[in-house]
Amino acid sequence: MRGVEKLRKLVERAKSFVILQGHNIWKLGKDDPRRVIHSIKVGLSLTLLSLIYLLQPLFKQSGVLKDIADNVLWALMTVVVVLQFTAGATFCKGFNRGLGTVSAGLLAFLMEFIATDCGTVSRAIIIGLAVFVVGATATYIRFLPYLKNNYDYGVVTFVLTFNLIAVSSYRVDSALKIARDRFYAIAIGCAVCLIMSALVFPYWSGEDLHNSIVNRLEGLAEAVEACVSGYFNNEAPDINEDDPEEDPVCMGYKAILDSKSTDETMAGHASWEPRHSRQNRFPGKQYVKLGGVIRQFSYTVVALHGCIKTEIQTPRHVRALFKDPCTRVADEVSNALNELANSIRNRCQCSPEILYDHLHEALTGLNTAFKAQPRLFIGPATDQTSDMLLAKAAAVAASDADKYLSSVKTDSAALLSEWRLSKRASNGVKSADKKTLKPTLSRITITSLEFSEALPFAAFSSLLIEIVAKLEIVIEEVEELGKKAKFKESNQGDNVT
Amino acid sequence: MRGVEKLRKLVERAKSFVILQGHNIWKLGKDDPRRVIHSIKVGLSLTLLSLIYLLQPLFKQSGVLKDIADNVLWALMTVVVVLQFTAGATFCKGFNRGLGTVSAGLLAFLMEFIATDCGTVSRAIIIGLAVFVVGATATYIRFLPYLKNNYDYGVVTFVLTFNLIAVSSYRVDSALKIARDRFYAIAIGCAVCLIMSALVFPYWSGEDLHNSIVNRLEGLAEAVEACVSGYFNNEAPDINEDDPEEDPVCMGYKAILDSKSTDETMAGHASWEPRHSRQNRFPGKQYVKLGGVIRQFSYTVVALHGCIKTEIQTPRHVRALFKDPCTRVADEVSNALNELANSIRNRCQCSPEILYDHLHEALTGLNTAFKAQPRLFIGPATDQTSDMLLAKAAAVAASDADKYLSSVKTDSAALLSEWRLSKRASNGVKSADKKTLKPTLSRITITSLEFSEALPFAAFSSLLIEIVAKLEIVIEEVEELGKKAKFKESNQGDNVT
Repeated sequence: MRGVEKLRKLVERAKSFVILQGHNIWKLGKDDPRRVIHSIKVGLSLTLLSLIYLLQPLFKQSGVLKDIADNVLWALMTVVVVLQFTAGATFCKGFNRGLGTVSAGLLAFLMEFIATDCGTVSRAIIIGLAVFVVGATATYIRFLPYLKNNYDYGVVTFVLTFNLIAVSSYRVDSALKIARDRFYAIAIGCAVCLIMSALVFPYWSGEDLHNSIVNRLEGLAEAVEACVSGYFNNEAPDINEDDPEEDPVCMGYKAILDSKSTDETMAGHASWEPRHSRQNRFPGKQYVKLGGVIRQFSYTVVALHGCIKTEIQTPRHVRALFKDPCTRVADEVSNALNELANSIRNRCQCSPEILYDHLHEALTGLNTAFKAQPRLFIGPATDQTSDMLLAKAAAVAASDADKYLSSVKTDSAALLSEWRLSKRASNGVKSADKKTLKPTLSRITITSLEFSEALPFAAFSSLLIEIVAKLEIVIEEVEELGKKAKFKESNQGDNVT
Repeated sequence: MRGVEKLRKLVERAKSFVILQGHNIWKLGKDDPRRVIHSIKVGLSLTLLSLIYLLQPLFKQSGVLKDIADNVLWALMTVVVVLQFTAGATFCKGFNRGLGTVSAGLLAFLMEFIATDCGTVSRAIIIGLAVFVVGATATYIRFLPYLKNNYDYGVVTFVLTFNLIAVSSYRVDSALKIARDRFYAIAIGCAVCLIMSALVFPYWSGEDLHNSIVNRLEGLAEAVEACVSGYFNNEAPDINEDDPEEDPVCMGYKAILDSKSTDETMAGHASWEPRHSRQNRFPGKQYVKLGGVIRQFSYTVVALHGCIKTEIQTPRHVRALFKDPCTRVADEVSNALNELANSIRNRCQCSPEILYDHLHEALTGLNTAFKAQPRLFIGPATDQTSDMLLAKAAAVAASDADKYLSSVKTDSAALLSEWRLSKRASNGVKSADKKTLKPTLSRITITSLEFSEALPFAAFSSLLIEIVAKLEIVIEEVEELGKKAKFKESNQGDNVT
């Protein structure tokens, strides 16, 4: 019976696994139908090349074609390795493979030429030494960051080809012919890859990079808006901590934080794409720079998001005083980001003056709100001998604050000892649900310190202002991009709705 | 003459390029001598396998050895592709290559078995179809994130091998024998790789991940300290903006921000490393989790660093009032991070209570400082009908602040119009040094708003408190790591100096 039960469970689990995977696989194509087309392209290329081999009996007579057909396996290998999703990536890999193969072939034949007069033993020694030196040197220089980023595959191909030719030339006399035939086969493979990636439903890395920047700007626009409205509506703490996927703020910036290497790869591939004339090159570097500035911007958004999540908050009625001006600033920031995204998407230059004006107005509004609440305003310290009345009034205010705070808070020392007790208890019990037993320390240390209740809002608004400052850098870089990529000039005011 | 000049310049440039590259190459080995040893290992493996081929005439008689020697090129290829820097990466790639080869072989022979009774034409059709279906399907499922992260290379090998066997089986009758010999050769190649990476000067991904976490904690400790001391000493703005490499704060967190994929790769490879028994497995996931928490911590450090770099600062004499308590907090944070780094390095469990106590004391000190400066303290708003005296006093304070501020600032409207003028002028001139002509807007919009001068310090201290809160999460995860990795228990107080 237990065996049957086990089997049933296993089948059940396998079934749900298959369903899950099926769903994932379906989603892959739904999210980006280009993936399906790319897969078909790869399948077609492989089949086409296989046909050369399968149909080879038909052209038995002609010499060169037969030789190529014999080596078609190398063309197949080339397609599997070289044909990538975007044209730029394919060009880059194809060039690497070609360069590696040719340079390794030349070096191997140069070595062959030198060793040609030696005896069998000394030739073996020379070959062995060469294999060692080339293998070790190439492996070592692959650690160079510049080579690693751009020509890693070329170096691997170089080592591979050099070894094949050098070693096999020791016993096969027709090494030159073999190398030539393989080279042809690889060239054919590369040609198929280039045609397939550049002419049949081509996908461009430059386009991908462009779109990803647009998406990021829009994601950040949403994140800033969600963050500020969440701060004033106090919705955020309800969100499940273990599954940050569903948090709209996280969604907006999550992908951006780790985007550095992807950006650089895409820009590198885009530089291989022959769609742009010499005068109008794809400004990959500017896109990478803009990506970096956007990343810097998103770190501030993360910090702002942190303001929602902190355990201790400024009381809601204090926050409510500043809801409108803060929301206004967030709206303008988010509008500006959307404008930038639109101008990049439509490839027209943005008009920063209008964006700046709106931002400035929103900041002025926030400033007015601060002035209207002078008690919340941290004035610069005057020197100690200044007006005594003021100091007295301030002291009263502080004691008043203390009174207010003591009503919501317990003594910090008592809380700390309580925490220690619970900690010790939980250490003794070692129960599975320890997490729930032990209150997190942060709640204690921080809520027990009165000053912290007052500070968070100041931090929040300061970060909001910092966001505006960073946004300006983003705007500058977008302007720069517009100039470098020669976006069309738009009539001022056209793109601001 | 111009030709000579050009040539001279070219030679000069080539010379400096070679010197630079030579320096870089030398630095590679100096930074991490393991790279040199790894390169020698690769060279040795390749030479060893080449020797089998070169010495093959010696064992002409024995059949199997000869067959293997004939296919040694496949072993060489395997070494070039599979032998990686760390043992885990080599195991992972070797397993992928093995799995891909074997499963592709099985599938190809299954197909062969089915098609064996068909005619030549229908066999060709079946093979062509199979190549298409396998190629397209495999390319498609490579987009699955799980497969892409773990078995990408296996799928590529699968497609490669399947094509080779399926296509060549059409014309070569001894396809089975060829496949077997190649499999042996690949197995030998894999064996050499495994031996070289696991037994000869082995490097472990788990070890690398462990050390990288330790380095990150130490880097952050330095960054926090440098950041806070920079804030109070006003040194930071001198640093060259274009070369953030030299900024000690940037140095501390820069590498951490983009560490996600590296962490996951290292943890993935570490899971292949057979150094740990089943009971005492390498807790790769916990390291990745800790890495994520450290990354979250570093985002707050970035925001704190942003406080140094903002254009507008709280006046220095205000900051000076809080220099000692803030520095104390930063010192304790940095001490705690160093303690954590040490406890991980020495693989002993940390005693968080002592760290918490010190942090709590430092925070209390900061709290006392805030209370001692009640005018800087933002009290919670009482309701509108409260003590009129207070409101009046506050109004006086605000006007006093205005007076103070007007002495250091110009009217915001005037500044903005000035900025617009300069902007228009620079648009007209389009000179190369436009950047210097155009004052950055941030300086204008933000310095012209009075409230911002008061807020930055509040933001700074709030972020400092946020850092303490995030540090607690880091401490919790380090504790968890200590338990999962079974670090030795240390006597409480031993590791706090």
